[in-house]
Amino acid sequence: MDLYEAMSTLRAVRRLRSDPIDEAIVERVLTAATWAPTGGNTQPWRIVALTDADKKQALQDLYKPHWDSYLPGYEARLSHMPEDARASSIKAMDAGNYLAAHMHEAPLIAVFCFNPKLMTITDSELDRPSVVGGGSVYPAVQNFLLACRNEGLGCVLTTLLCYEEDAVKELLGIPEDWYPCAHIPVGYPVLGGHGSIRRRALDQMVRYNTW
Amino acid sequence: MDLYEAMSTLRAVRRLRSDPIDEAIVERVLTAATWAPTGGNTQPWRIVALTDADKKQALQDLYKPHWDSYLPGYEARLSHMPEDARASSIKAMDAGNYLAAHMHEAPLIAVFCFNPKLMTITDSELDRPSVVGGGSVYPAVQNFLLACRNEGLGCVLTTLLCYEEDAVKELLGIPEDWYPCAHIPVGYPVLGGHGSIRRRALDQMVRYNTW
Repeated sequence: MDLYEAMSTLRAVRRLRSDPIDEAIVERVLTAATWAPTGGNTQPWRIVALTDADKKQALQDLYKPHWDSYLPGYEARLSHMPEDARASSIKAMDAGNYLAAHMHEAPLIAVFCFNPKLMTITDSELDRPSVVGGGSVYPAVQNFLLACRNEGLGCVLTTLLCYEEDAVKELLGIPEDWYPCAHIPVGYPVLGGHGSIRRRALDQMVRYNTW
Repeated sequence: MDLYEAMSTLRAVRRLRSDPIDEAIVERVLTAATWAPTGGNTQPWRIVALTDADKKQALQDLYKPHWDSYLPGYEARLSHMPEDARASSIKAMDAGNYLAAHMHEAPLIAVFCFNPKLMTITDSELDRPSVVGGGSVYPAVQNFLLACRNEGLGCVLTTLLCYEEDAVKELLGIPEDWYPCAHIPVGYPVLGGHGSIRRRALDQMVRYNTW
């Protein structure tokens, strides 16, 4: 698939069929993640690829209460949105409800982990939330999502399970120095899957030379 | 360009020609960034696209001392590397020296900024470096890098200028709630540019079901 076509049609797909994914396809989307750049080429991330039914069920059990807690705030924000944005956000909320109830049915959940000791986090001392560590993980996540889109697989980046870090680490046997930071259910779409996306116009996102 | 070809040949290109980039090409690589997913589709990032010679020079002036400070640690790590990794790291170091001396010559420096108030940072309360905010910025950065690769443009993600956040914010007029977190020089390559990359094998990066 053409690069720009993949990027411009990558949606958050939250309704996923339980049909299995061919092993060769799984290897391709995982390999695409490994191609991403990382600071100093240290590749300070790993994936735990979950296919085991009990472990996926355990993740869903952990996920759903946090989605349920997140929902009222999401609903409250809806009322402040312009009409067209609201319609699209209500759809995303319904799909989110579906995911929270069915996450374990996805044939694959990719859990990305990172090791901060392998990173040079240049904004760790600043008086604002640090993000730079994410610069050596989320490019790999984006490669993974784009590869899923290329293979016709639905997928969505979730981070709510960070609220359950200790439980996730124990469940998956993640070592002390490594931390999960992205939990991505993957499967063939129930509905239309990928397609058109809603984004701000370029002139709202880019300034030249001065903010 | 095919998605997998772009991903698997995206290198950190640090030697960049000063030749200008066609405006339509600049718009395409910027637009590719806007397609990236973000938490709640809030798109909590912006780009300041630098083409002004004085501002680029000011960034290089800020960057070089930090590269010079970073270098001894980098050199020290070289001695612990296996032979083949060392050779490739020495090349990267030389290219890094070139970039530090010539950054201002790049026709474009894209400065990605983010606003944490527009993010739900689910790992902000954990007793380890937070990265989740980066999950709504670095996917856009990766789209941008891949788009540059697609257009034959060299580019490299740098984060050392986070050490000079206040100076960068003042130079570019970045508002209080927004923070720069990626500084990406872009230009046509002096040498071969993109091509083969060195990454760990898949079985070193992925575990199934249990770490």
